[in-house]
Amino acid sequence: MKSDPAGATTTSPAVSMSGRLMEELGADEALRLLGTVELGRIVFTRHALPAVRPVNHRLDAGDIIVQVQDGSTLAALLAAQGDAGVVVAYEADAIDQGERLGWSVVATGYATAVTIPSEIERYAHLLQPWVEGTASGAIRIRPDLVTGFRLRESSP
Amino acid sequence: MKSDPAGATTTSPAVSMSGRLMEELGADEALRLLGTVELGRIVFTRHALPAVRPVNHRLDAGDIIVQVQDGSTLAALLAAQGDAGVVVAYEADAIDQGERLGWSVVATGYATAVTIPSEIERYAHLLQPWVEGTASGAIRIRPDLVTGFRLRESSP
Repeated sequence: MKSDPAGATTTSPAVSMSGRLMEELGADEALRLLGTVELGRIVFTRHALPAVRPVNHRLDAGDIIVQVQDGSTLAALLAAQGDAGVVVAYEADAIDQGERLGWSVVATGYATAVTIPSEIERYAHLLQPWVEGTASGAIRIRPDLVTGFRLRESSP
Repeated sequence: MKSDPAGATTTSPAVSMSGRLMEELGADEALRLLGTVELGRIVFTRHALPAVRPVNHRLDAGDIIVQVQDGSTLAALLAAQGDAGVVVAYEADAIDQGERLGWSVVATGYATAVTIPSEIERYAHLLQPWVEGTASGAIRIRPDLVTGFRLRESSP
């Protein structure tokens, strides 16, 4: 968990061009931005292959709580890992393709299934399913490593 | 490459609720939709951990061509894999968080670095870097498995 899994920290702090600057975000600011959107993508390994799935999330006391709408995949994945959890990456962004401005954040950490009944109930209210009926539970990601960047206009 | 890495095909074709239906997309339609946007997320394994990075893409004769803006990570990854390439997943979506309508597509397949000079030049024009100077090349993903879903309003 020491190295940056997506290489974001290997770019220099502010690389210019095309009128856009790419600025690295601090971990706190990155996590704050992630909390301003509802939609992200959980990234995991399945059958030794990289896999990704769009999901809804909320921040809760510094953890990322993800709603699992497709029961079979993630639930089975987590169940197989036992209590220790499994390392996942979580990405969220808000980038305007026309303006080419915005930000992207990647958090990496251990994911565990939410199993305490009171928490399950609370998150069921927090994470209103977009497509109900398929929701099968929640996953907690403890973000050990949070990186991100912001694209902004360069000053003239 | 036979199983769905993201579990999308394990959901039923049209699961209702909250006034939203989730419809599975056919592979052709999914790839077509992916071609309508510029921004996606490449998902790979780095140091045995899941990693994800937002990138720009274009479709070219059924392949997904991705611009690598951050030279070190992906280039090093691909170089280490040799000619056979490495399996990656690629996700793109267009989901309106307010309306909760839109689509998401995941393509999984082998990624190889673009090394032919004429192709490098062509893709350099096709894939205008958002933040120039950091662009270090292009990656071709042959999508062996393409899945996706569309969220649409249920008919009254």
